[in-house]
Amino acid sequence: MLAFDDIVVGQKFVSGSLIVDAAEIKAFAAQFDPQPFHLDETAAKASPFGGLVASGWHTASMTMRLLVGGGVPLEGGLIGVGGELTWPRPTRPGDVLTVESEVLEARPSRSNPDRGVVTIRSETRNQHGEPVQIATMRLVAPRRRRPDGRPDYQDK
Amino acid sequence: MLAFDDIVVGQKFVSGSLIVDAAEIKAFAAQFDPQPFHLDETAAKASPFGGLVASGWHTASMTMRLLVGGGVPLEGGLIGVGGELTWPRPTRPGDVLTVESEVLEARPSRSNPDRGVVTIRSETRNQHGEPVQIATMRLVAPRRRRPDGRPDYQDK
Repeated sequence: MLAFDDIVVGQKFVSGSLIVDAAEIKAFAAQFDPQPFHLDETAAKASPFGGLVASGWHTASMTMRLLVGGGVPLEGGLIGVGGELTWPRPTRPGDVLTVESEVLEARPSRSNPDRGVVTIRSETRNQHGEPVQIATMRLVAPRRRRPDGRPDYQDK
Repeated sequence: MLAFDDIVVGQKFVSGSLIVDAAEIKAFAAQFDPQPFHLDETAAKASPFGGLVASGWHTASMTMRLLVGGGVPLEGGLIGVGGELTWPRPTRPGDVLTVESEVLEARPSRSNPDRGVVTIRSETRNQHGEPVQIATMRLVAPRRRRPDGRPDYQDK
């Protein structure tokens, strides 16, 4: 697992993958995004999507699952501050998703010397290599410490 | 429900509200964001958050639930293209969330004359009025049509 001080701009990570399931698309939608094109195949066929599609927030959540499962191996966990995301195309049942991430920026925190902020671009792709989500998120990462708790870094 | 042509910059909407439940925070986390500070009160107490907090993607998903439930009354549904979001503070068990939205921009689609793109800023606040999420999202909205299907609008 990487501390802030192990992170280098340009570093890349690849997640495992997961298969998107129609029942899970509908269950997520029933709870958080109950719109016909996320809930029901027949209604979805008549929608602009032409078939059942996952909520964008479901795609974002599945992406997080892949990142937490090793897709971005940050010490201290993945604590997001915010960022930007787009959904260039929908996620559909049977899609196999994988996330490729790249470090765009890494800078020490101004307010808190024991951490840094890492900006990571994560592209979530389906089995055809087509992006279903592109997210650029800012994450908080702890700085490296020695076993005695003293800082183990020099400012870049 | 509003079509693209009913939308005016500066228009505001307020959602209903929902109560955030500790069991739901953990269930969401187990599925999508299995980190200690989202899964377990004791581990969360020792984390930077000092207690159990919802995944940011859970906050985003609950926000979507409030928007779909009348928080942004768009004809044709809420179809997001993408946007930006920040989580200024965490969502905690017992929080009561409400979303206030404001239209920032509304422009006809360049590529598709039967729709427009609406940019909406949605602030998700807890019971103290503090924002837990600020999202500025771009949504696709259909243009108004007459009963015979012909367009019922003039370009702004």
